[in-house]
Amino acid sequence: MSKRTEIKTVLTDFDSRIGQEITVMGWVRAFRSNRFIALNDGTSMNNLQVVVDFEQLDEQLLKQVHFHACIKVTGQLVASQGAGQDVELLAAKLEILGGANPEEYPMQPKAQSMEFLREKAHFRMRTNTFSAVFRIRHGIAYAVHKYFNDNGYFYLHTPIITGSDAEGAGEMFHVTTLDPANPPRTEDGAVDYSQDFFEKPTNLTVSGQLQAEIGALALGKVYTFGPTFRAENSNTSRHLAEFWMIEPEVAFYDIFDNMDLAEDFCKYLINHILEHYPAELEFLDSRIQKLEQNMPKEQRRAMGLIETLRFVVDNDFERITYTEAVNILRSSKPYKKGKFEYEVEWGKDLQAEHERFLVEKKFKKPVIVRDYPAEIKAFYMRMNEEQEQIPGRTVAAMDVLFPGIGEVIGGSQREERLDVLKARMADMNVPEEELWWYLELRKFGGCPHAGFGLGFERMVQFITGMGNIRDVIAFPRTPGNAEF
Amino acid sequence: MSKRTEIKTVLTDFDSRIGQEITVMGWVRAFRSNRFIALNDGTSMNNLQVVVDFEQLDEQLLKQVHFHACIKVTGQLVASQGAGQDVELLAAKLEILGGANPEEYPMQPKAQSMEFLREKAHFRMRTNTFSAVFRIRHGIAYAVHKYFNDNGYFYLHTPIITGSDAEGAGEMFHVTTLDPANPPRTEDGAVDYSQDFFEKPTNLTVSGQLQAEIGALALGKVYTFGPTFRAENSNTSRHLAEFWMIEPEVAFYDIFDNMDLAEDFCKYLINHILEHYPAELEFLDSRIQKLEQNMPKEQRRAMGLIETLRFVVDNDFERITYTEAVNILRSSKPYKKGKFEYEVEWGKDLQAEHERFLVEKKFKKPVIVRDYPAEIKAFYMRMNEEQEQIPGRTVAAMDVLFPGIGEVIGGSQREERLDVLKARMADMNVPEEELWWYLELRKFGGCPHAGFGLGFERMVQFITGMGNIRDVIAFPRTPGNAEF
Repeated sequence: MSKRTEIKTVLTDFDSRIGQEITVMGWVRAFRSNRFIALNDGTSMNNLQVVVDFEQLDEQLLKQVHFHACIKVTGQLVASQGAGQDVELLAAKLEILGGANPEEYPMQPKAQSMEFLREKAHFRMRTNTFSAVFRIRHGIAYAVHKYFNDNGYFYLHTPIITGSDAEGAGEMFHVTTLDPANPPRTEDGAVDYSQDFFEKPTNLTVSGQLQAEIGALALGKVYTFGPTFRAENSNTSRHLAEFWMIEPEVAFYDIFDNMDLAEDFCKYLINHILEHYPAELEFLDSRIQKLEQNMPKEQRRAMGLIETLRFVVDNDFERITYTEAVNILRSSKPYKKGKFEYEVEWGKDLQAEHERFLVEKKFKKPVIVRDYPAEIKAFYMRMNEEQEQIPGRTVAAMDVLFPGIGEVIGGSQREERLDVLKARMADMNVPEEELWWYLELRKFGGCPHAGFGLGFERMVQFITGMGNIRDVIAFPRTPGNAEF
Repeated sequence: MSKRTEIKTVLTDFDSRIGQEITVMGWVRAFRSNRFIALNDGTSMNNLQVVVDFEQLDEQLLKQVHFHACIKVTGQLVASQGAGQDVELLAAKLEILGGANPEEYPMQPKAQSMEFLREKAHFRMRTNTFSAVFRIRHGIAYAVHKYFNDNGYFYLHTPIITGSDAEGAGEMFHVTTLDPANPPRTEDGAVDYSQDFFEKPTNLTVSGQLQAEIGALALGKVYTFGPTFRAENSNTSRHLAEFWMIEPEVAFYDIFDNMDLAEDFCKYLINHILEHYPAELEFLDSRIQKLEQNMPKEQRRAMGLIETLRFVVDNDFERITYTEAVNILRSSKPYKKGKFEYEVEWGKDLQAEHERFLVEKKFKKPVIVRDYPAEIKAFYMRMNEEQEQIPGRTVAAMDVLFPGIGEVIGGSQREERLDVLKARMADMNVPEEELWWYLELRKFGGCPHAGFGLGFERMVQFITGMGNIRDVIAFPRTPGNAEF
């Protein structure tokens, strides 16, 4: 089978192949004028033009060259007569590998709604938009591994099934092998988890951070890249029940090192896509322009997709404290005019509308906000010294905010002082027994360290410009939906 | 904080630094003669020798330089006076970042049992053995991504939570948000899954293959690398309830292309580690030699660790059919002498003892067995033509067998013929309704394709020589164990 030439190779490395006979296989993206087949095999954004001669090929065969049929073509590669491509393939032999009867096939060679395409997740990757998105998704994932590998980090697989529910990041999915209709019971009628697979209740992880800290305090620099789960009943364009997270964790790093890492890392990912996926980005950029054509101006993007990406990599991220952010917001026009829905007050969390103001109106670039009030942040974040000008205690937490999508990164320096950590856990009702090992990490050979979590799909959304997070993951899991 | 120099940099790039003052941070691996600290920060297999002058440093401070304490040292880097290292650091300032009181700290500077270390998974990565294993594990994972990226594959995240239990690879974990003590019931008393998060029963995935086929039939060449789950009550050195799988899936590939890919891929991974992790491999190689010193000869490895790895990359894998394997086994000495515990008969699956004979005795190298009896293989494997010499129908399945660990790869060409697939699913009681999309993949734009699954931990075991699979994953999940 493997004697085919990949279309990407044909399109980019054709000099030596012109005049030669080659075989290609792929899916029909279009069949124009009963003469020109646009063939795509997934290797490239661009199609190969296959030229069909009705005299030479069987008419019945050509009638089966439908949209998204899979075909095999052998013929001579020649310099193209027309504009728009360097080469084209003169079909001498054509074989239908898999038909696609248009009377039954749900996909059509015209725009179909995103909602419809989500129901056809087994075919949507054959479209220009989704093939571009999923090639770029791959590119970002690869860049993640390359960045960390080249910088001396070790990839750590933290557990997916966890016996702890102390991480406090929202509702969790239970994992069990007990018969849900009739679980074994203890004498007092409770579910007898000693008979469950792990002999206790277990859940799907919401974060690998706490375990990543174990790795950092031995290997120095580690990162995770794995699935995480939230059983939140949020049916929005921003939430998934199953999504992928990247969590670097670094020994001897403080919050400032952490911010430097976050900025450098984001820019690296974006630069990698700008460099390696220009055709995909151009397609997605023009796709957005077309979508926005008929929108009122205030709903359109301030900048084009590629322009936005270049702007992010070419500028320093703005860095401000939470306290500064509150002051900026309270002296802003929308605040004074009562345009914010949510209150801005020291001690309360920033809402999406506030973050968007800071990023999109005030600074017009990514913003890193740090030193949040301790009361609204997790127990493991490092307590800052008290400061006279500031109304309450803060922790060395940071959020990286991006235009359009809001928070892509949340991180912190971790509390390495055992006594401070214990007091904070007591305050926040985090049970010590479950996290005995987390406490022991502070007792034996601990050190200052820091890390963050990057929501992978958020970053894919930012780089591809896709509006709904369900369109940047192949098989989205959301309330009521676990199809495929 | 970040003004430290990493120990790997100090040890490999010291010319320009000799005579300079540097700061390093890390964990104490040994403190000999009250004078020489072996310091490790995780970046390297090798330690930096820190030389302590009692006259210069506070005695009370030096008393805290315990095994695995975390310290910060500033001083002059000089060419080493002793043998065994190029450079050493003369400590001018020393600070304890995190103590490790030996009266309480469970880790000790002597050999401790693997079982004990598993209970101390939050500290075992600080040992030579485990830090070597987890650096190599990272290296293999990185090589996986690099191999596929460089060869034009796209990384696909297949779902972890699945609504299908038709994949037929063993017992599954249930995922639910219903209250296990008191789930909602329908009128007839069954659990009312319409009230569960996904509005139906869901499980943890056992394989991403079926969804990867979706990707292959659009993007051409894809791979998955994610966690998979088996709720089997197997308490062995070979089984995990949660483990990582790599599953490439390729359009237009047949079983022979698939075998070529598997062999090339395995060799690439091993070569990557031979090239990039020589110090780790040497350490693990000598570790095994020490372990085997007092074993009877027949229990020792036939070859050293590095020798085994070189042997695999330097030789072609043996390729035989299942029918040939059966014939070889039935004419073998152990068979004739009745040494095999399990029967060898066409139509029955090969057991570990048979596979080991083929790999370790007969061919002394990796073996790829293909064309297994249809009856013992999964529904999606492609049915071969009937052959006169062969007692039953076979499928285009393949297993790659490695010395010591047995099967590392299982794969097949997939059944792309809709009618054959439907007949096979009916035979094997696989419900069509659940896999409607899998059938539609054959109906619309299908083509021949193939792929395989590589058990990641098995490969890590092979390359590191670790005897128990629980020692090559950071936080093993096994029956009764979901700690950390």
